[in-house]
Amino acid sequence: MSRFFMNERETLVEQALEGFAESHSGLVDVHPDPLFVTRRTPTTGKVALLSGGGSGHEPLHTGFVGQGMLDAAVPGDVFTSPTALQVRAAIQAVDSGEGTVMVVKNYTGDVLNFSIAAELLADTHRVEQVLVDDDLATEREDDGGPGRRGTAAVVAVEKICGAAAEAGVPIAQVRDLGRRVVARSATLGVSFEACTNPETGRRSFELEPGEMEFGVGIHGERGIQTRVIGKADDLVESLVSRLVEAVGLRRSDSVLAIVNGLGATHGLELAVAARQTRRVLDGQGIDITRSLVGPYVTSLDMKGLSITLTALTDDLVKFWDAPVRTPALVW
Amino acid sequence: MSRFFMNERETLVEQALEGFAESHSGLVDVHPDPLFVTRRTPTTGKVALLSGGGSGHEPLHTGFVGQGMLDAAVPGDVFTSPTALQVRAAIQAVDSGEGTVMVVKNYTGDVLNFSIAAELLADTHRVEQVLVDDDLATEREDDGGPGRRGTAAVVAVEKICGAAAEAGVPIAQVRDLGRRVVARSATLGVSFEACTNPETGRRSFELEPGEMEFGVGIHGERGIQTRVIGKADDLVESLVSRLVEAVGLRRSDSVLAIVNGLGATHGLELAVAARQTRRVLDGQGIDITRSLVGPYVTSLDMKGLSITLTALTDDLVKFWDAPVRTPALVW
Repeated sequence: MSRFFMNERETLVEQALEGFAESHSGLVDVHPDPLFVTRRTPTTGKVALLSGGGSGHEPLHTGFVGQGMLDAAVPGDVFTSPTALQVRAAIQAVDSGEGTVMVVKNYTGDVLNFSIAAELLADTHRVEQVLVDDDLATEREDDGGPGRRGTAAVVAVEKICGAAAEAGVPIAQVRDLGRRVVARSATLGVSFEACTNPETGRRSFELEPGEMEFGVGIHGERGIQTRVIGKADDLVESLVSRLVEAVGLRRSDSVLAIVNGLGATHGLELAVAARQTRRVLDGQGIDITRSLVGPYVTSLDMKGLSITLTALTDDLVKFWDAPVRTPALVW
Repeated sequence: MSRFFMNERETLVEQALEGFAESHSGLVDVHPDPLFVTRRTPTTGKVALLSGGGSGHEPLHTGFVGQGMLDAAVPGDVFTSPTALQVRAAIQAVDSGEGTVMVVKNYTGDVLNFSIAAELLADTHRVEQVLVDDDLATEREDDGGPGRRGTAAVVAVEKICGAAAEAGVPIAQVRDLGRRVVARSATLGVSFEACTNPETGRRSFELEPGEMEFGVGIHGERGIQTRVIGKADDLVESLVSRLVEAVGLRRSDSVLAIVNGLGATHGLELAVAARQTRRVLDGQGIDITRSLVGPYVTSLDMKGLSITLTALTDDLVKFWDAPVRTPALVW
């Protein structure tokens, strides 16, 4: 018996997508075979913006399909890349002639399958890619490995590129804007309790009382270090300090801060983290010009949070502020 | 050591409110002493709508302060009623002469303190109350007890009364509209894992593998029955069938369905529940005219969900659809 609420493991993603689509039927359509999600009302004459990846990170990416953000999202099974054929079908559905920008989180399977999809369409469609690799915990000296993982900065990339595409910005500039956001972003995550494996109903790892994992990603894996849980403020300070250094922020800089719940983290906990994020940055003369606090990129029901900082410029703020109308983000 | 992410138990609510207010500084103001939350931009010349109660249910109620919904929210400590003096101060701050409607969830402490506040202002302010008591699990033969608890139907009451107040509807009608919503609503909740007590870091109760609690409220307490976890669809069917009966729904009726996460429930799980809610109602010829799926009335980080059905009429749909701009609800 699992404590993950579902019918069978095999039907989880399909049934959840049906429920999601019905709850947001004014905004999105689910195409079942091959599986992808598009806006209910397609917008043509603009660059198409598409993303996707394994399920289990909701509201990412399906919750960000809609006006001002994604044209399509391509969900795989839980923590599993979608196939190249899914991605190809989604591109064919949303590319209205201005080309498609794919936002791809840096995981081997995703990178492979999105690239194959683009290659399959090379003769007929212009497809550009923004690779998101914001997770500091996986930074290594150049070891020929896969590089940093993609985590919550993907929300900033999708929002900003989505606004640019909606405003009629051409494909190369939408792509470059996304790459700029990635280059100006960094994320670190921590976990206080692992997520439930829907297959077994067991947690993906066990922590001793008072322990936490530092530097977790979004696939239920352990972090880079097991630490003692201290005060929230001390932990947030250590996260934010590393992010400030990694992004190269200086006094008077302006940032977007995403304080992201990993699935089972309560609003009170996220608000305490958001408060200290602001205080640490204030102390260094860095201004949180925009922020987003809530569960946006989850790791199933993991208890934990990540903090993302993105260095802002005026044009990035303008695209961040542009109207958005999706199931998970509205303004 | 607690796995609830915070600094000290004593400062949890205060610091979370600071973080919340800073993250939504365009929308809300926190008044620290006595503690209450108001819209950043007050709206005068209309009935004031106010609610409140213990913290730990976020986004309820503070996340619903803003245009088209609440004028003020009065938070107590975790799972603890605010004081009458807090409520009084909030009424004084938001009543612009058209009177105040208080939305009160049916708990002894809340009922007492909100009533005292109204009495303290009886000479100078007109204050009306809508008591929300939608939780079927606590229905008893009339035993002189406190009656049914107030749970997620409060979101429908606050949205609909908020829209009516914003539209200039006078106080008696706003109150009666709220009471109509309550009379047409019922809720049932289930839990697969208890919430963390922030004080001790322990779960408020322990379940054996494969067990769940049926008929839980929103204060971390056990339900009315411990059951074996079966398939999601079977459980949802048993919840929805009881709600249909309690609300007295018939073929061709139209409902608002709120599929509410209790804190640690994942979007995939809620979507599976939303899907089956629609199927069960479809099978009875009842139309989900509007729905809301997500964590709106939480019980700290409890893993579980509640389903609320509200029988709709055209005027209720109109007020539900009216624009709303709050931290947690925007359309």
